[in-house]
Amino acid sequence: MPLLYITRKEHFNAAHQLWNSNWTEEQNLAIFGKCANPHFHGHNFDLYVCVKGQPNPDTGCVMDLKKLKVIIREEVIDHLDHQNLNLDVPWLSGQMPSIENISVAVWHRIAAKLPVGVQLHKITLWETQNNFVEYLGE
Amino acid sequence: MPLLYITRKEHFNAAHQLWNSNWTEEQNLAIFGKCANPHFHGHNFDLYVCVKGQPNPDTGCVMDLKKLKVIIREEVIDHLDHQNLNLDVPWLSGQMPSIENISVAVWHRIAAKLPVGVQLHKITLWETQNNFVEYLGE
Amino acid sequence: MPLLYITRKEHFNAAHQLWNSNWTEEQNLAIFGKCANPHFHGHNFDLYVCVKGQPNPDTGCVMDLKKLKVIIREEVIDHLDHQNLNLDVPWLSGQMPSIENISVAVWHRIAAKLPVGVQLHKITLWETQNNFVEYLGE
Amino acid sequence: MPLLYITRKEHFNAAHQLWNSNWTEEQNLAIFGKCANPHFHGHNFDLYVCVKGQPNPDTGCVMDLKKLKVIIREEVIDHLDHQNLNLDVPWLSGQMPSIENISVAVWHRIAAKLPVGVQLHKITLWETQNNFVEYLGE
Amino acid sequence: MPLLYITRKEHFNAAHQLWNSNWTEEQNLAIFGKCANPHFHGHNFDLYVCVKGQPNPDTGCVMDLKKLKVIIREEVIDHLDHQNLNLDVPWLSGQMPSIENISVAVWHRIAAKLPVGVQLHKITLWETQNNFVEYLGE
Amino acid sequence: MPLLYITRKEHFNAAHQLWNSNWTEEQNLAIFGKCANPHFHGHNFDLYVCVKGQPNPDTGCVMDLKKLKVIIREEVIDHLDHQNLNLDVPWLSGQMPSIENISVAVWHRIAAKLPVGVQLHKITLWETQNNFVEYLGE
Repeated sequence: MPLLYITRKEHFNAAHQLWNSNWTEEQNLAIFGKCANPHFHGHNFDLYVCVKGQPNPDTGCVMDLKKLKVIIREEVIDHLDHQNLNLDVPWLSGQMPSIENISVAVWHRIAAKLPVGVQLHKITLWETQNNFVEYLGE
Repeated sequence: MPLLYITRKEHFNAAHQLWNSNWTEEQNLAIFGKCANPHFHGHNFDLYVCVKGQPNPDTGCVMDLKKLKVIIREEVIDHLDHQNLNLDVPWLSGQMPSIENISVAVWHRIAAKLPVGVQLHKITLWETQNNFVEYLGE
Repeated sequence: MPLLYITRKEHFNAAHQLWNSNWTEEQNLAIFGKCANPHFHGHNFDLYVCVKGQPNPDTGCVMDLKKLKVIIREEVIDHLDHQNLNLDVPWLSGQMPSIENISVAVWHRIAAKLPVGVQLHKITLWETQNNFVEYLGE
Repeated sequence: MPLLYITRKEHFNAAHQLWNSNWTEEQNLAIFGKCANPHFHGHNFDLYVCVKGQPNPDTGCVMDLKKLKVIIREEVIDHLDHQNLNLDVPWLSGQMPSIENISVAVWHRIAAKLPVGVQLHKITLWETQNNFVEYLGE
Repeated sequence: MPLLYITRKEHFNAAHQLWNSNWTEEQNLAIFGKCANPHFHGHNFDLYVCVKGQPNPDTGCVMDLKKLKVIIREEVIDHLDHQNLNLDVPWLSGQMPSIENISVAVWHRIAAKLPVGVQLHKITLWETQNNFVEYLGE
Repeated sequence: MPLLYITRKEHFNAAHQLWNSNWTEEQNLAIFGKCANPHFHGHNFDLYVCVKGQPNPDTGCVMDLKKLKVIIREEVIDHLDHQNLNLDVPWLSGQMPSIENISVAVWHRIAAKLPVGVQLHKITLWETQNNFVEYLGE
């Protein structure tokens, strides 16, 4: 049976700030530049969730993409869309809301909800049209 | 001589909030929904500036696009990128930072700096991949 | 008060066929080519609805985009998405489902539902990445 | 000698339907939802074919992309474009036209035609702007 | 009868240089900057041709898009694709190959070939992802 | 500690020609077709640089993307943008300026400048909207 990788894209709009509270304002500005603006800035984030598995012979599909969409929305988008990633998201609190850290947190939330026979393969998170991060669970 | 319309695209990332301080929190949430989040949310904004004029016979160009880029960056992008549109921008203070109001404010800043022989034609501002506003100065 | 043009994008996936029942199969194939396939073909359609008006001083917005989204979905997308445009849509029956005719029909459905103070300006319908139609109501 | 991966994108527009003839209509609608519309729906599909190999020292290229384009068109696009994937394609008949199954079938058709020294690496098939499948031949 | 605007997109890849032979090298570099590189530079150009007319009642279409595609390819793309716009194109010789001048020349070539009942409305030419020109024939 | 892959996109516009000086003009035209135009043609190239590493606990980031941007611009973009890839780039001279060869050369220039703890993972170079190459350093 062939192994297929299937990806669903969702998006959210959010504010964030890169700021290390153990550092002075001068250190934060020196390291994070404009990303340390104390009043926050924001982005339109594009999130791609890639799962892998073998197609079900009855449906021809690795999994029902409508179910994958519901998992992503309930576990991630409903928590992040139109929110402040530093202040409003319990499962991101206490860590820097970089796209690296967000991707790892998203990985664990999605992986816990996938049906039997389907494995999470990759989380891709675009922050702007010019940069994105990928996490494969390792 | 033919009349040509030439457009330059720039972008900025910013936080904002739709909130009317004459209203109660309930009214704001009822009207603006998630856009009224008191901790702000944000977007990657794409700004298109369209100018019109006749090509200079010596250059074949309506205007030097490098100069248009500098005008847009000095008058708009350097003020808005990685900023909070409610708190950080003097020329937006006192008004709702909707894409409608931002576009009108951007129009007046750009129009004042264009060289002789070139007229501003249209400001287009994309807030997400699904919505944008256009202003033609009238 | 400035006049602003604001656009919302939605999309739908549908099957259709270009076929004139007054013609023979040979005539249909000669005129419509592959678009006359009797088993239908299909597209991902992108629909842009542009309205114009003056921003409300209390909100800074021409109209609530969430309301525009609901109008487009209830009047158009819910009727066309995952449908056969020749067979499944009462308000398209009896006419060729070309993007020209669909756009005119969409115009009349949306225009009838807009709130006071907002006018429909343009319907844009993309059929593929290489062709689209615009209708301004005239 | 370095190993390079080179990708060519093509596209096709087609109708399809997800329907298991061993099931009742109720079962099909319960599992496939709108995708089970008996009158079909359709998409603009984007197909990416990725091959790998070492550049020829005389040309600097892994393979002539014009030849890869001809292979993809003759083996795949000419068979699928403006067709009904359930009814019109002999090499898809008898199986569900899901993007998973189409990708596997496309893999075998392309792999059989590549020149010596070039290996097929990945088939990627986009069905909408929000979902796609990848197959690596295993 | 409604008036519809229909657009077809094509593209070409070409080299060019902005250089005024009445000026010294210093003047050219001062005005055109990197665009004056004597060895040329190049772009992927996207060309949109928009025509207007009333749909034919028999076809539902303003014009056969396959015919519009053939006109654009025969009159423009076949002359410009993989060419040097300063050296290889008789109908551009003697003028600066700016996107302004190319658009006006393309307008006249396309307008002369359209069928009765269809009028050319707009030529749009993208030079990079950040700048484009529009010409409406006036 | 998780391993993250982070990608930065930059672009450049350049002219090039595929031509093997050991061959006759007939051979070059037979093999390279329009790409062998002796007056050159050109493209808008999109370059993606992907690096991998573990996020720094103090910043949440694999590396400072502003520094990655500076490395890419100083090592690659400033040398290639608005240049002729056959004539103007010392580190490409003596080899065919195919996207395969450019990618390998770019790999070595970027890899030599990355900070400790960050490894180059992949170079991706798009030549047109329909073809691109990937190199993983092996």
